[in-house]
Amino acid sequence: MPTRVRQDLFDPRRGLDRGRGRAVEALWYACKVVFFLSAFPWPSALRVWLLRRFGAQVGRGVLLKPRVNIHLPWKLSLGDHVWIGEEVFILNFETVTVGAHACISQRAFLCTGNHDFRDVTMPYRNRPIVVGDGAWIGAQALVAPGVTVGEEAVVTTGSVVTRSLPPAMICSGNPCVPVTPRWRETAG
Amino acid sequence: MPTRVRQDLFDPRRGLDRGRGRAVEALWYACKVVFFLSAFPWPSALRVWLLRRFGAQVGRGVLLKPRVNIHLPWKLSLGDHVWIGEEVFILNFETVTVGAHACISQRAFLCTGNHDFRDVTMPYRNRPIVVGDGAWIGAQALVAPGVTVGEEAVVTTGSVVTRSLPPAMICSGNPCVPVTPRWRETAG
Amino acid sequence: MPTRVRQDLFDPRRGLDRGRGRAVEALWYACKVVFFLSAFPWPSALRVWLLRRFGAQVGRGVLLKPRVNIHLPWKLSLGDHVWIGEEVFILNFETVTVGAHACISQRAFLCTGNHDFRDVTMPYRNRPIVVGDGAWIGAQALVAPGVTVGEEAVVTTGSVVTRSLPPAMICSGNPCVPVTPRWRETAG
Repeated sequence: MPTRVRQDLFDPRRGLDRGRGRAVEALWYACKVVFFLSAFPWPSALRVWLLRRFGAQVGRGVLLKPRVNIHLPWKLSLGDHVWIGEEVFILNFETVTVGAHACISQRAFLCTGNHDFRDVTMPYRNRPIVVGDGAWIGAQALVAPGVTVGEEAVVTTGSVVTRSLPPAMICSGNPCVPVTPRWRETAG
Repeated sequence: MPTRVRQDLFDPRRGLDRGRGRAVEALWYACKVVFFLSAFPWPSALRVWLLRRFGAQVGRGVLLKPRVNIHLPWKLSLGDHVWIGEEVFILNFETVTVGAHACISQRAFLCTGNHDFRDVTMPYRNRPIVVGDGAWIGAQALVAPGVTVGEEAVVTTGSVVTRSLPPAMICSGNPCVPVTPRWRETAG
Repeated sequence: MPTRVRQDLFDPRRGLDRGRGRAVEALWYACKVVFFLSAFPWPSALRVWLLRRFGAQVGRGVLLKPRVNIHLPWKLSLGDHVWIGEEVFILNFETVTVGAHACISQRAFLCTGNHDFRDVTMPYRNRPIVVGDGAWIGAQALVAPGVTVGEEAVVTTGSVVTRSLPPAMICSGNPCVPVTPRWRETAG
């Protein structure tokens, strides 16, 4: 019996507004290869300037390390004093919003891309991601489509965040769940 | 007490048939660096053509994104309309077979490489991987040596698949286990 | 309410001795880009030679694959006959010590970097990592700051090691826990 799934019938324009024309996207891709994916130590400020030129909202004091993969800069919003570590992958078919003073650590993956796997043509079911102010996404953690990570939440290293997380909790595991309060004064 | 493990006695020819001579493997490695690992947006069709030249079985309508790491193309079989996402790592010391209409999402890792860790010389214990027709391996998921992922199975993002999975189930976790049917008509 | 977290007040010199001056670090970074991050198949012996020039302790018979990310070589110690696989990330703000005959498999991540997330200025709380003689860190496994992996321990693929592990046990999961003895004669 052949599979019911029909990826040949997938329509890449259904459920996705790429937000810019092909020429702009191609230009962004070229900039991404040279200034973002590359290990060359371009100043973080140059990367921030480029992101803004391509429509990203980027606050003051943002630190962007080398080897970061950002899919569509016009669907990215970074608050003041955000840190983005090496090898971070921001697959933002839909908007990724990172609040002020939030940290996305090395090799973390913010993934807005998804498919409706109960439709045999696998249409996009992409969903935005919000990382609240002061939150910390640990190294190699994965944040799934549609997730909101609460303000000041801490996602420990290697966690897989499939559901939204409340504010100011330390959260851990696969699937990632809240474990204990971040601030000691709220622990009791 | 010194460790019992003796990696200096490891024999790289025991338990592994590389399948081609050194010259062919070196040529493949050069092609891999330029056309596969690179972020340069070569047409997917060029990558498919190269894979076939190096002995891979590749069906029609296959989509291969940039930055994909394929170890030995002559041990790779991709069915019609397969999608392979960015940063996918196919470490195929043994055959990796991906069925028609299957999707391997971004940063997923299909790992056939293993060692017999109860033998102090750490001989290879590599095992093939089969991903069934219409299955979906989610982003950053890991598939371990010897695993068969059933037809139309869905492995959710960030899962670690250490054992084979049945067909048409949504599977999740570390270790990854079947959770619920994919198709609604079979749910009751 | 604005977040309490104040990454703008982070002091990169507090809690971290980078160990070398800026010129040496810049020179290492250049070498890293060309000889380590690159997919070019430089001989492993050249990489070993470079690591030693930059202050790493490296034993005999060490095998270092391409595309390995090492942060600070002068905080790295590799015993005899260590293997380091492709895409391994050694983020060694503090010392990473890998014992003789140990294996760090593809895409594994040894992460010494951390922050005190209960201090609003997010000061470093980096901690060293020790991988014992004859231990094996499986593919895509993550080892967190401060962890000691016991001698001859096996961390299975995709595990997340947040606490130290005893010797000679097979350890698995997220969080990674000891499951069964490695050597059969000690099983009963």
